[in-house]
Amino acid sequence: MAQKPSIPKGTRDFGPQEMAERNYIFDTIRSVFRTYGYAQIETPSMENLSTLLGKYGDEGDKLLFRILNSGEAFSGIDFEGYRLEDGGVNSKALSLKVCEKGLRYDLTVPFARFVVQHQNEIAFPFKRFQMQPVWRADRPQKGRYREFYQCDVDAIGSRSQLCELELVQIVDKVFSLLDVRVLMKINNRKVLTGLAEICGFPDKVVDITVAIDKLDKIGLDAVKEEMMEKGLSAEAVAILEPVLLLQGSSAEKLASMRSLMAASETGMKGLDELEELFGFIAAAGIQMPCEIDLSLARGLNYYTGAIFEVKALDWQIGSICGGGRYDNLTGIFGLPDMSGVGVSFGADRIYDVLKGLDKFPASLATGTTLLFANMGPEAVNYILPIAAALRGKGVSVEVYPDAGKLKKQFDYASRKAIPFLSICGGDEAASGTVQIKDLASGEQRSFAKDDLDGMLEFI
Amino acid sequence: MAQKPSIPKGTRDFGPQEMAERNYIFDTIRSVFRTYGYAQIETPSMENLSTLLGKYGDEGDKLLFRILNSGEAFSGIDFEGYRLEDGGVNSKALSLKVCEKGLRYDLTVPFARFVVQHQNEIAFPFKRFQMQPVWRADRPQKGRYREFYQCDVDAIGSRSQLCELELVQIVDKVFSLLDVRVLMKINNRKVLTGLAEICGFPDKVVDITVAIDKLDKIGLDAVKEEMMEKGLSAEAVAILEPVLLLQGSSAEKLASMRSLMAASETGMKGLDELEELFGFIAAAGIQMPCEIDLSLARGLNYYTGAIFEVKALDWQIGSICGGGRYDNLTGIFGLPDMSGVGVSFGADRIYDVLKGLDKFPASLATGTTLLFANMGPEAVNYILPIAAALRGKGVSVEVYPDAGKLKKQFDYASRKAIPFLSICGGDEAASGTVQIKDLASGEQRSFAKDDLDGMLEFI
Repeated sequence: MAQKPSIPKGTRDFGPQEMAERNYIFDTIRSVFRTYGYAQIETPSMENLSTLLGKYGDEGDKLLFRILNSGEAFSGIDFEGYRLEDGGVNSKALSLKVCEKGLRYDLTVPFARFVVQHQNEIAFPFKRFQMQPVWRADRPQKGRYREFYQCDVDAIGSRSQLCELELVQIVDKVFSLLDVRVLMKINNRKVLTGLAEICGFPDKVVDITVAIDKLDKIGLDAVKEEMMEKGLSAEAVAILEPVLLLQGSSAEKLASMRSLMAASETGMKGLDELEELFGFIAAAGIQMPCEIDLSLARGLNYYTGAIFEVKALDWQIGSICGGGRYDNLTGIFGLPDMSGVGVSFGADRIYDVLKGLDKFPASLATGTTLLFANMGPEAVNYILPIAAALRGKGVSVEVYPDAGKLKKQFDYASRKAIPFLSICGGDEAASGTVQIKDLASGEQRSFAKDDLDGMLEFI
Repeated sequence: MAQKPSIPKGTRDFGPQEMAERNYIFDTIRSVFRTYGYAQIETPSMENLSTLLGKYGDEGDKLLFRILNSGEAFSGIDFEGYRLEDGGVNSKALSLKVCEKGLRYDLTVPFARFVVQHQNEIAFPFKRFQMQPVWRADRPQKGRYREFYQCDVDAIGSRSQLCELELVQIVDKVFSLLDVRVLMKINNRKVLTGLAEICGFPDKVVDITVAIDKLDKIGLDAVKEEMMEKGLSAEAVAILEPVLLLQGSSAEKLASMRSLMAASETGMKGLDELEELFGFIAAAGIQMPCEIDLSLARGLNYYTGAIFEVKALDWQIGSICGGGRYDNLTGIFGLPDMSGVGVSFGADRIYDVLKGLDKFPASLATGTTLLFANMGPEAVNYILPIAAALRGKGVSVEVYPDAGKLKKQFDYASRKAIPFLSICGGDEAASGTVQIKDLASGEQRSFAKDDLDGMLEFI
């Protein structure tokens, strides 16, 4: 094979440096999830296609990666039966015939499936997190991959706004640990439903929501136009317009909304929920700014209560975390009335933010603390127990495997950014000592070979 | 959907308890890899099929999970062109046409591909580890899954036996931390080559190796029979027989082998390597027993030097870790002469051993340390900052979200095995105190709400 090997488009290799940085993000998020009592689960990479199909809309169905049935997948298939009238092939039907499994598209549907399948083993409210890759056959482009990690945290089985609060607390803590200033935008789907009711088009809530979601992107006029195109009257749009233009603090917005929303019971309930949540947020001492944003809807239409979105304040990028409350996620699998709320952290975007703001700790740059140069077999036999003892103390230690030129060994230390080097030859073995050099400062010190504490203090 | 959802056969969901146990294994292995300076990498779940095909033999090719090309995968395909003479379908050819990608079958081939693709960015010798799932369309059965994790550690770019030693040290340390007594069997592929040479059938090394590999399973007579079937003469088998029956210490075996092997240069080189490795093992102070086992061959035929296999001493199961040295792994991708050595830890079998021997730490049983009962909104507002402060100290704390019956809240603590419960109502809020109860001992203590140190000492 003359050609250099490659990987499928939209996928990535992660080398040591990038892995250390990614692990820093994952470890930070995981540690916060755990202090709130969320437990980790994992689901299989492949699900039955019947579990996945129809859950993400027609577009999502097309983006599912399908796995060819194993064995003789095409044996016994009557291809003529999959002809279209125009002579082409019904790819959709044929792929359903030869593919029974697909790769996970997100973590939400597998979570719903998990909860229904294991409902008798679960202590509700079930607080779980999940950090696994998902796959989408999207057109690859900058910042969009066909395999990427999601970090989801959900509490299911309680309608208490304390669950929402916990997610706000978790987001606050994660970004505080990552040293990234963020803003959390909060809305409530019931308020959006209320808007549809007060303008007289209660059946248009999805259309209104989708249109409002585009406010940032296409502007007020285009949103109004889109609402008209979807069948709203000019009067209805006029009723909605002041809502979209609301200014002021979250408390002021809530107050203004109460008078507008009086005619909608659902809308008032949404305002109650927002008010309760903001009360909890004040009591819990949240550091990051949290504000009500009535234009926040998010594309997904399974949210029924709170809606969250988090943006970095010092770096231009889309939302880096988002989620909301859903009342009927598990209903699709036969378990109704199981309300839950969750958010998903976008690891790739968070990575980009930390990279852009230069927020990765410098200590991530190296894995190994000390390299013993290799001065030949006898010197190595002298070194081995010392290296083992240092590792026993948790220090990352390497012994260069080959007794080659010292220049090559130095180069290795330099390329791996190893900060300390020890050259022990016959003299050190004879005197029972260890020389260690700080490659940055040039300082070199000598230790008795048993003086682990001394070495630990230096390196 | 009336039917309970399910997952594809051979795949698994991991709930909180199992995840905690699996993470304990992964974290332990990872921590040891790191103290030896091995750096983590990750490769994509899907590779181009051209990367995977032909690397695992015909049987392996059949076990690859193939991913249907996205979009209209079957559009424009002339199915008649895939007819076999008997009227059936050439599934193999057709699947190659409609599937360009496959799921990772192991971590070794992607590692070789990674090294070749990124050779200019890598500091050699390259010490890497990788812990990711792999997929095989094997017939599912007890202990064999279609998706399972591998934990591979390799050093590539050095022929030094110190690399072999490091792997022995790593295995020793991992199982010592996991508190599992193991035996490491060591062989050398060059010695097996030598055996083929001294019996006069140098071209039968693979046949001899495969036959010897079955010694444990089918016994000496059947192995001899198989060798004859593969074309060895009775005289050749007679020459090999004493080797298979060698007894004694590793040093004694090495000595006996030297006289038998004198006629084979390669064989003598293998014995030299074994002797050097056992010298290093003695110098490094390895705790686990390591013994030469000349019947150890392992199925894979890319090993060229050391061969390793690890067995648990107190639990009956196959090998729980194994590997060896390969001189030409990256040659298949166009980078020759890159010798390396690695071992793979079998996470699922190690899990079974720890489960069987009851070796999981009891502390894994719970995620949450303290549950605050929910006594209503005002009590919750009092609790929130206290819970946040405890979490800031690293304690895993939950606040029960609903102000329901206390019995339900107790049940929740019990099902999640939460060891400490705090019930704070109006009295505690008024007096600025916190009651915490140790649910195991029944002991209950009261703390001033700012006395975090006191609480930390108790819980």
